[in-house]
Amino acid sequence: MKKIINDPKNYVDEAMEGIVAAYGDRVAFFENDKRVLVRAGKKKEGKVGIVTGGGFGHLPLFLGYVGEGMLDACVVGNVFASPSYTKMEAGIRAADAGAGVLCLYGNYGGDKMNFRQAMEDCADLEDIRCEELLGTDDIASAPAEKMDTRRGVAGIVFAYKIAGAAADEMRSLDEVISVTKKALGNIRTMGVALTPCVVPEAGGPTFFIGEEEMEVGMGIHGEKGISTSKIMTADEITDMIIDKIGEELPLLAGSEISVMVNGLGATSLEEQMIVYRRIAQIMEEKGVTIVAPHIGEYATSMEMAGISISVFVLDEELKKLLLAPAATPFYTNISR
Amino acid sequence: MKKIINDPKNYVDEAMEGIVAAYGDRVAFFENDKRVLVRAGKKKEGKVGIVTGGGFGHLPLFLGYVGEGMLDACVVGNVFASPSYTKMEAGIRAADAGAGVLCLYGNYGGDKMNFRQAMEDCADLEDIRCEELLGTDDIASAPAEKMDTRRGVAGIVFAYKIAGAAADEMRSLDEVISVTKKALGNIRTMGVALTPCVVPEAGGPTFFIGEEEMEVGMGIHGEKGISTSKIMTADEITDMIIDKIGEELPLLAGSEISVMVNGLGATSLEEQMIVYRRIAQIMEEKGVTIVAPHIGEYATSMEMAGISISVFVLDEELKKLLLAPAATPFYTNISR
Repeated sequence: MKKIINDPKNYVDEAMEGIVAAYGDRVAFFENDKRVLVRAGKKKEGKVGIVTGGGFGHLPLFLGYVGEGMLDACVVGNVFASPSYTKMEAGIRAADAGAGVLCLYGNYGGDKMNFRQAMEDCADLEDIRCEELLGTDDIASAPAEKMDTRRGVAGIVFAYKIAGAAADEMRSLDEVISVTKKALGNIRTMGVALTPCVVPEAGGPTFFIGEEEMEVGMGIHGEKGISTSKIMTADEITDMIIDKIGEELPLLAGSEISVMVNGLGATSLEEQMIVYRRIAQIMEEKGVTIVAPHIGEYATSMEMAGISISVFVLDEELKKLLLAPAATPFYTNISR
Repeated sequence: MKKIINDPKNYVDEAMEGIVAAYGDRVAFFENDKRVLVRAGKKKEGKVGIVTGGGFGHLPLFLGYVGEGMLDACVVGNVFASPSYTKMEAGIRAADAGAGVLCLYGNYGGDKMNFRQAMEDCADLEDIRCEELLGTDDIASAPAEKMDTRRGVAGIVFAYKIAGAAADEMRSLDEVISVTKKALGNIRTMGVALTPCVVPEAGGPTFFIGEEEMEVGMGIHGEKGISTSKIMTADEITDMIIDKIGEELPLLAGSEISVMVNGLGATSLEEQMIVYRRIAQIMEEKGVTIVAPHIGEYATSMEMAGISISVFVLDEELKKLLLAPAATPFYTNISR
């Protein structure tokens, strides 16, 4: 196993320690718990709290987005494993500032079970109003008529940005939910994987992709996608993904979208730029304007090679919230 | 070859088109030349120009650092190949705003030959005062007594930041040179590589690293380093590198440094955080304060796996310039 790590048992804790050592001006552990990361400094009374969480191994997701203008707390488990509900309760308590808490996370069974238990307990015992919204942006994981069974992947970063900006404007919980729901409805993602990743405690790849093959629609934990195919060119991959997304989102002349080209971990920025170039060409042909393109690693599977493309259809309100300032370890937006 | 690309012949041009499509508000092609990238918008008369350049395949280096507070122009060649001197002349002309131009680039034979020809021509024909400073931060590439033969690697990003901030303060060319020289003298880098990279037109790896081995001190084009060793733990690698750097830089109690943990392309952010954690521990023991740690991919070899660590010893002047605002495609600093 070629990884720069120490004892695999300490993998998550040590990476978490590194994050707080590096970004202690922006983030901190909550009650010394290395699995619960919160914004540094004092809470803003009356602000809606935004909490997320899930398995570890997707940096910068989710931890890199805790901070001004985005998340208030993030709870992580072991690699690709849901945190326990008691950790999630801590995250909700950490984020609560008297105006309720939105749990905004990806649609995975373990996370759902544990977040729901934690929300129930926090409502009953702590009298915190808790609501949830789920990321279900991965169009390869189920057909449109089964939308609510789809997985959440990189597109949730756009939703964090919208929810976080709305909460920072001191909107009420109902208002934050309403605009975040609108955002989630306008986000779709699809990806391809070229190589597998290695879970440190397992020590070897957890699945296999042939030397000249790619997995179309593979999930960020190696979940099976739509098909296995021979590796295609960058333009062919991009055209295929944008076509699929275009079946669900209106990409109409005169409209505005944002786009995320996300490297899954081992894919070079050069390749991501080549993919973005093709997206820009397609959208120019369609008369669609791209606002604030996001290109880089936003949601990874450690060292998996591959990319995903997310499209986020904007209106004036969503655009304004997307462009609002943010300052987290891995997402910095200067006000324009 | 597992890359998301189109025709390998178009690799560089298409990636460059992607960069300008994505960041057209910050950067532009100079005279429609896809190998010469400049800041978007009007030049500031009387500002010293900062120019860099070299072979392609190291994104975000160098292109990602053109913009406010850093570089004025960047010239790139083919993958791992120096641009021609005529392209470098274009870069110098593009950056010239009447106060002279600093060519700040890594110490590689082809780049040196071509930059020097271009500087001579620009001085003779265009009456532009041109000076150069070379990045030689890679301590594994030659012993200290042969400092001027060392390669330039990731540490040059710190030098770009210092030179760019000094130029943006409207300092004279001599002043910019003086402070940048001081910075270069205070920066050292060393790295390890775990897997090779693939040059698109070659189609296969250009060198080989054994399944349980790593290359200590390998360059960002696969140049041989100090030794081949069995893969070590993250803490062992970090200790070894910081020890070597400590032989050349004073890491004294009470002093301030910045640190860059740089992923070479395929190394996960989780691993980089584990390495940073160890650096933070070591520096805390020494009583050295780390300012503005840089963790991520700053100078890559496309999809090579491995990391480098750079240490930059600060004084008050260097610290102020390091923390000054910047806004480039891949380096954003909010004023603190």
